[in-house]
Amino acid sequence: MPNLNPVCALVLLALNFTAAFAGNQTNATLNAEASDPKAMQWMTGFPPLPDKLITQPQSNYFSFPKLRWTVCHIRELLPTTRVSRGIGAPVHLPYALDNGIDDITFTPLGSDTAMTWRESLAANYTDGLLILHNGRIVYEHYSGCLDETGKHAAMSMTKSLTGLLAEILVEEGKLDDQANVTSIIPELAESAFGSATVRQVMDMTTALDYSENYADPNADIWQYSAAASPLPKPADYSGPDGYFEYLQTVEQNGEHGVAFGYRTINTDALGWIISRVSGQNVAHMLAERLWQPLDTEQDAYMTVDGKGTPFAGGGLSAGLRDLGRVGHLMLNKGRYDGHQLFPEAVADNIQAGGDKEAFAKAGYTTLPGGSYRSMWWNFHNAHGSYAARGVHGQTIYIDPTANMVLVRFASYPKAGNSQIDPTSLPAYQAVAEYLVNMN
Amino acid sequence: MPNLNPVCALVLLALNFTAAFAGNQTNATLNAEASDPKAMQWMTGFPPLPDKLITQPQSNYFSFPKLRWTVCHIRELLPTTRVSRGIGAPVHLPYALDNGIDDITFTPLGSDTAMTWRESLAANYTDGLLILHNGRIVYEHYSGCLDETGKHAAMSMTKSLTGLLAEILVEEGKLDDQANVTSIIPELAESAFGSATVRQVMDMTTALDYSENYADPNADIWQYSAAASPLPKPADYSGPDGYFEYLQTVEQNGEHGVAFGYRTINTDALGWIISRVSGQNVAHMLAERLWQPLDTEQDAYMTVDGKGTPFAGGGLSAGLRDLGRVGHLMLNKGRYDGHQLFPEAVADNIQAGGDKEAFAKAGYTTLPGGSYRSMWWNFHNAHGSYAARGVHGQTIYIDPTANMVLVRFASYPKAGNSQIDPTSLPAYQAVAEYLVNMN
Repeated sequence: MPNLNPVCALVLLALNFTAAFAGNQTNATLNAEASDPKAMQWMTGFPPLPDKLITQPQSNYFSFPKLRWTVCHIRELLPTTRVSRGIGAPVHLPYALDNGIDDITFTPLGSDTAMTWRESLAANYTDGLLILHNGRIVYEHYSGCLDETGKHAAMSMTKSLTGLLAEILVEEGKLDDQANVTSIIPELAESAFGSATVRQVMDMTTALDYSENYADPNADIWQYSAAASPLPKPADYSGPDGYFEYLQTVEQNGEHGVAFGYRTINTDALGWIISRVSGQNVAHMLAERLWQPLDTEQDAYMTVDGKGTPFAGGGLSAGLRDLGRVGHLMLNKGRYDGHQLFPEAVADNIQAGGDKEAFAKAGYTTLPGGSYRSMWWNFHNAHGSYAARGVHGQTIYIDPTANMVLVRFASYPKAGNSQIDPTSLPAYQAVAEYLVNMN
Repeated sequence: MPNLNPVCALVLLALNFTAAFAGNQTNATLNAEASDPKAMQWMTGFPPLPDKLITQPQSNYFSFPKLRWTVCHIRELLPTTRVSRGIGAPVHLPYALDNGIDDITFTPLGSDTAMTWRESLAANYTDGLLILHNGRIVYEHYSGCLDETGKHAAMSMTKSLTGLLAEILVEEGKLDDQANVTSIIPELAESAFGSATVRQVMDMTTALDYSENYADPNADIWQYSAAASPLPKPADYSGPDGYFEYLQTVEQNGEHGVAFGYRTINTDALGWIISRVSGQNVAHMLAERLWQPLDTEQDAYMTVDGKGTPFAGGGLSAGLRDLGRVGHLMLNKGRYDGHQLFPEAVADNIQAGGDKEAFAKAGYTTLPGGSYRSMWWNFHNAHGSYAARGVHGQTIYIDPTANMVLVRFASYPKAGNSQIDPTSLPAYQAVAEYLVNMN
């Protein structure tokens, strides 16, 4: 893809595929230190040298190692909309740093050689790592392009926040998750979504005729990317313009409700549903329901399509500690600072997980026995852990047993989490067990 | 200009011309109430109706009345870079509201009918109005697209902040304003800037062969706009890419230092000089020198070209009260909260003004006897007032005699300040005289 449509990259990143950029990953063997964006000198100098420029579309800005700069600079490449924290004073999270965490050891999946937590940070090209235990920061680490005042692309963790908003509307009685999508969005009547329930969209058990065969220039993913681009359409473009128009073109393939099928377009459909029901777009609702009441430190932002619609499936960039606040709110079942920001059942439902049988059909090798509910991944492990996840290693990992929230921003060279899970999931579990023993 | 290059509009807005959009202003007779963006229902609904969409480039988003929405939503249409406030608590400005201000009367220039201050707000399509007196907010008003948590395009007020940064570097001994530009930016040696001094660039007394004849498709303004656009260049584009490349193509016409000539490209050249000298781009230096130490309420942001260079000549969007903080810092000669953020001489120099003779040659009818220094406009009136100014009615107006800072965001249908000055400058003076009597 030498001239990748600039927004394609962002859309692809919201998906769970590595193939898209395989051709660009000629430098994939650079380790974290060598590929550090400061070491690479991306975008340094006035002007940067030509080979240090990261621009769109020619430079394939989501290819590794450029990716390691881009994840902190999305707004400099694309139009975005603000997720406003308001103008009040942020309430900083309390600290109880634990130096012992660095030395925790774990055995990566498929390996017989132990690794320390500290070693896992570079192995995973970690840009930011926050661990909250009992509501206090016990571990915090910044590297690569990120620092405490910066923001990082959340990738598909955006989906989980969109799913959370939908679950809130359901529990507040404003959205019937058993309703057909058509009853809420009549424009989707003729599409695959029209015959699905809101719940099927929320849990991604819709049966969509949606191809992600990157070798096929007519594959749906390219049409989706072209529709979603906020940049002016080419003069000869005649396809759908924007997320909402694209969604109306999606056809059904099979029976809804049977199998989990991870398709970002479900989240964009859910974003439309949320907007129609609440009267707010996803960015505005995130601001009102989470960013403002949680006393966050930074505004977040979302990329938009050419009509100003936020990219509900993958467009969020946010600060590390602010996503920690969101995770902590989930762990505390919606309670924050004496207020119940959403009904307890919202978190209970998400924590309970979804349909394991439907999930198993999708064949995620690193997530055996898992499920997906309201755009959150559930591990169904002994600790009852669940997570928001995004390509290249993004996660908000919530462990109710350990009373732990772990947020990781990363720029792992490969997109798919199946590549990075082996040095991540056992590490999270080891930290959780360590913290359980601290309780 | 039915298919105006999307960034052209922004560039044009940084200039002081009304001609550019004359053809679009068929609705210019709509008053402030009728043209309120909420009343117009711009971008409302999911999706907005086709005639309520504001997109780029087809919708000419800077044409009135769409302009009245766009000035609060630049980032949703263009890539931008953050001017970070950091993550500390904002320090809110104290209040001493004075309800008497609304009833102050003044006589507009060229009129013999008095108008009240309150009437002037709608007459000027005011979006935000803040008056600080003795460091306290005595008047605050929001309308149109703006509220206290929002941001508004600063247009060419951006130039004054860029000029302030340069003046700071001069007074700190890091930038010699008598040096030739070539000695700092060798890449500009062959351009008109190469033979100018830094001071001539700062005061816009360079003699540039730069045409803003909008009827000529080969006029420099179009080439500048095309170069500055952050959007991917057309396949057949072979011109300069970005501000820095464009500046190298500007040729000289006449003798530097003789006449004031308002050309945005001077500010972009100054932004390059600032960056080379300081090692920071203008957005980063604004953050470090102003937004963070001033305990601002909101991040600001700047549009960028396709290489990430902030638009030093017109790209800033900011909150109303945060620009009030900047004005108050000027009034207090760089002192804030017990700290001297820049040498007193910085503000003294700007307040003293520039070369009146050079300024007179430019023929600004509403600014007789004025001057321009370090990208600030000086009225040389009895109160020693000076201002940052931007098209469509933007101003930071500083009156040292009245110890008053007045910030106005507006979306006046016509771009040129000569249209809006008659109901503005006498109004500012009347408020200043009222406040002087309060001292």
